[in-house]
Amino acid sequence: MELQEIYTHIDHTQLKQTADWASIQKLCDEAIEGGAASVCIPPCYVKQAADYVEGRMKICTVIGFPNGYQTTTVKLVETKEALADGAEEIDMVINLCDVKNGNFANVAHEIKALKQACGNRVLKVIVETCFLTEEEKVTLCHIVTGAGADYIKTSTGFGSGGATIEDVELFRRECGAEVKIKAAGGIRSREDAEKMIEAGADRLGSSALLKR
Amino acid sequence: MELQEIYTHIDHTQLKQTADWASIQKLCDEAIEGGAASVCIPPCYVKQAADYVEGRMKICTVIGFPNGYQTTTVKLVETKEALADGAEEIDMVINLCDVKNGNFANVAHEIKALKQACGNRVLKVIVETCFLTEEEKVTLCHIVTGAGADYIKTSTGFGSGGATIEDVELFRRECGAEVKIKAAGGIRSREDAEKMIEAGADRLGSSALLKR
Amino acid sequence: MELQEIYTHIDHTQLKQTADWASIQKLCDEAIEGGAASVCIPPCYVKQAADYVEGRMKICTVIGFPNGYQTTTVKLVETKEALADGAEEIDMVINLCDVKNGNFANVAHEIKALKQACGNRVLKVIVETCFLTEEEKVTLCHIVTGAGADYIKTSTGFGSGGATIEDVELFRRECGAEVKIKAAGGIRSREDAEKMIEAGADRLGSSALLKR
Amino acid sequence: MELQEIYTHIDHTQLKQTADWASIQKLCDEAIEGGAASVCIPPCYVKQAADYVEGRMKICTVIGFPNGYQTTTVKLVETKEALADGAEEIDMVINLCDVKNGNFANVAHEIKALKQACGNRVLKVIVETCFLTEEEKVTLCHIVTGAGADYIKTSTGFGSGGATIEDVELFRRECGAEVKIKAAGGIRSREDAEKMIEAGADRLGSSALLKR
Repeated sequence: MELQEIYTHIDHTQLKQTADWASIQKLCDEAIEGGAASVCIPPCYVKQAADYVEGRMKICTVIGFPNGYQTTTVKLVETKEALADGAEEIDMVINLCDVKNGNFANVAHEIKALKQACGNRVLKVIVETCFLTEEEKVTLCHIVTGAGADYIKTSTGFGSGGATIEDVELFRRECGAEVKIKAAGGIRSREDAEKMIEAGADRLGSSALLKR
Repeated sequence: MELQEIYTHIDHTQLKQTADWASIQKLCDEAIEGGAASVCIPPCYVKQAADYVEGRMKICTVIGFPNGYQTTTVKLVETKEALADGAEEIDMVINLCDVKNGNFANVAHEIKALKQACGNRVLKVIVETCFLTEEEKVTLCHIVTGAGADYIKTSTGFGSGGATIEDVELFRRECGAEVKIKAAGGIRSREDAEKMIEAGADRLGSSALLKR
Repeated sequence: MELQEIYTHIDHTQLKQTADWASIQKLCDEAIEGGAASVCIPPCYVKQAADYVEGRMKICTVIGFPNGYQTTTVKLVETKEALADGAEEIDMVINLCDVKNGNFANVAHEIKALKQACGNRVLKVIVETCFLTEEEKVTLCHIVTGAGADYIKTSTGFGSGGATIEDVELFRRECGAEVKIKAAGGIRSREDAEKMIEAGADRLGSSALLKR
Repeated sequence: MELQEIYTHIDHTQLKQTADWASIQKLCDEAIEGGAASVCIPPCYVKQAADYVEGRMKICTVIGFPNGYQTTTVKLVETKEALADGAEEIDMVINLCDVKNGNFANVAHEIKALKQACGNRVLKVIVETCFLTEEEKVTLCHIVTGAGADYIKTSTGFGSGGATIEDVELFRRECGAEVKIKAAGGIRSREDAEKMIEAGADRLGSSALLKR
């Protein structure tokens, strides 16, 4: 696969707690130059970055990130603000407490509420596979599909593990065909990227691949 | 120091992404029985836990946690909701992006806004020392003092490092006398606890010390 | 009926757009002295008034007031903030657009969401009878009952008409026994008050009755 | 002045509490056909209307409307949500309680916060002249100018009075040249419209002028 083709699948990502504005600008420059799908940045930078890229790159941000246990009201307000500030893609973290309590209805309700807020803007649902059983992964594939999300995403990059080929394959098998897959967490080389795309990933989260 | 005395300094803590309700109930039971200062739990459990403890234990929760790079508006809404749901103590994470950009005015403004929301309820400010230079630590002590927060807190427990004796001593030296100190992250033994209290910590965040 | 007894049913009210702080203080003083049920004041004054009365009087405020056509998310955030600021009673306005579109499911959903936010604090639901047909009034009695609200309230005082004896009687007939009634709008004399209480009202909103 | 020219100055408005969706659709159709500047509608309809007009008409909505005494946090969340939902113009009501308390700093702070949220989208500031002294009007012209708002607007249409020629002239005299003027409230005829435009109004809020 051509490197240039791989780049079109990348959400070029900088989500460090200490990311300064210079690093966000650089990220945007690299993404524009390399032809990335989006830049994925902290909520506090959405507005500034949207002004900076002036429509030349999509802004993606993270909601309820990375622990996911905020209330639905807070996630909703955070999403609305991000969209108002210029984000076109929203990567939300599900509430894993709900998962562990078996409250999958809450998980579904929350995803639906955020998708309704997004309208035709893209919603990606991070299920954080490193904390899930196989059974939970399967259930969540069905819930994400039913809730109308655009993407299911493997990982935050802040959990105990990142994307695996096995999880991408499981997602492809269990999610509806209209749900795309984003693999994130630990994707650092061209080989990693190619394998994930071959396994069924449409989008890759990576801070390393497009770095100058 | 008597173990019972140590317990009165502890925010008994369960902040795992996957914390189920049974673990939160157990935490509350242990805290009540042991005589802890509070239970420190995810925002999504505040209301349920407040109903469960029925005033027998203070509820503490975390805001902008653990990465700190949410917008001030979102942190404010999250704080208001936590207070409405029954939280009496609020542990907020500062925006480290602002710190790294040198925008200390933003940091001060955000702490003040949250303290105003808290009124006479306790606000603790997590500065996440593992990501700070000595100079930044000193500046933040002054800012936390000036903004009228009740506590400065070392760590989230999700960063690259936890509380150190040196940081507690630095806080004690640099903060105003009215600002108390909470040490958190990696405090697992009675000895750890005693050393932190001797160094000047008034409150300890720990998931291990009070565990049955 | 003794005047003193009537006073215990009154939400002593100041909701003018131009209400200054002196008028709110006076309202609180009058309510405390007269033994009112609560003071009903604008959201922007809740915190200041809660500090002022120091627990000697309940604070009631208004949500989505008076037009009711804010989004549910905004009403929820407004409610949470009011509770965090010290309000113990919440008078919300339903979305009359939903009523006129026949979307009673939305109306029910919104009331439930706000009641969940209130927990054991009082939720009163203003249906604004002056804009309703008899059929809509009946339907709304059933919805307010089903949604678990504490009170149904006739009017905002900003619509084209206020409380009528007929509406209070209709409410009493159609609502569940556990739902109390608040009459508001145009109640200015002792006779008005007595008639409303006799018709079934448990609470009266009035700016005039307790005025010194 | 040509009728067609007048239409380009009109925010075609439907803000009744009981506005049903059919009336909003009709409003949008009339605005598109007549070439209005925008449709001005309740917050709960912004998303649906944005989907309906598909970019053929600007959506304007109202914040803190009509009483203005919501908290700044709530107005901010309401603004962010409206922008996220597709509003391109925001008509906010100032907090008249602040005005009457002489807290003009709060008024300025609130306008600035909302303008920051709006970015390059239009912010109109409703000062509700019917409740203001001449001195307050002058002070507010200076504050609206200093806060960087795009428009000053006379009235909500829900107060005790609407737009007057005198107020438009006062605004033109006292506001900075970069601040435009919107006259609203009681503008029902072509003659009304022409006089307001001649006096300096750039935008007119009216529910009557463009009605089929």
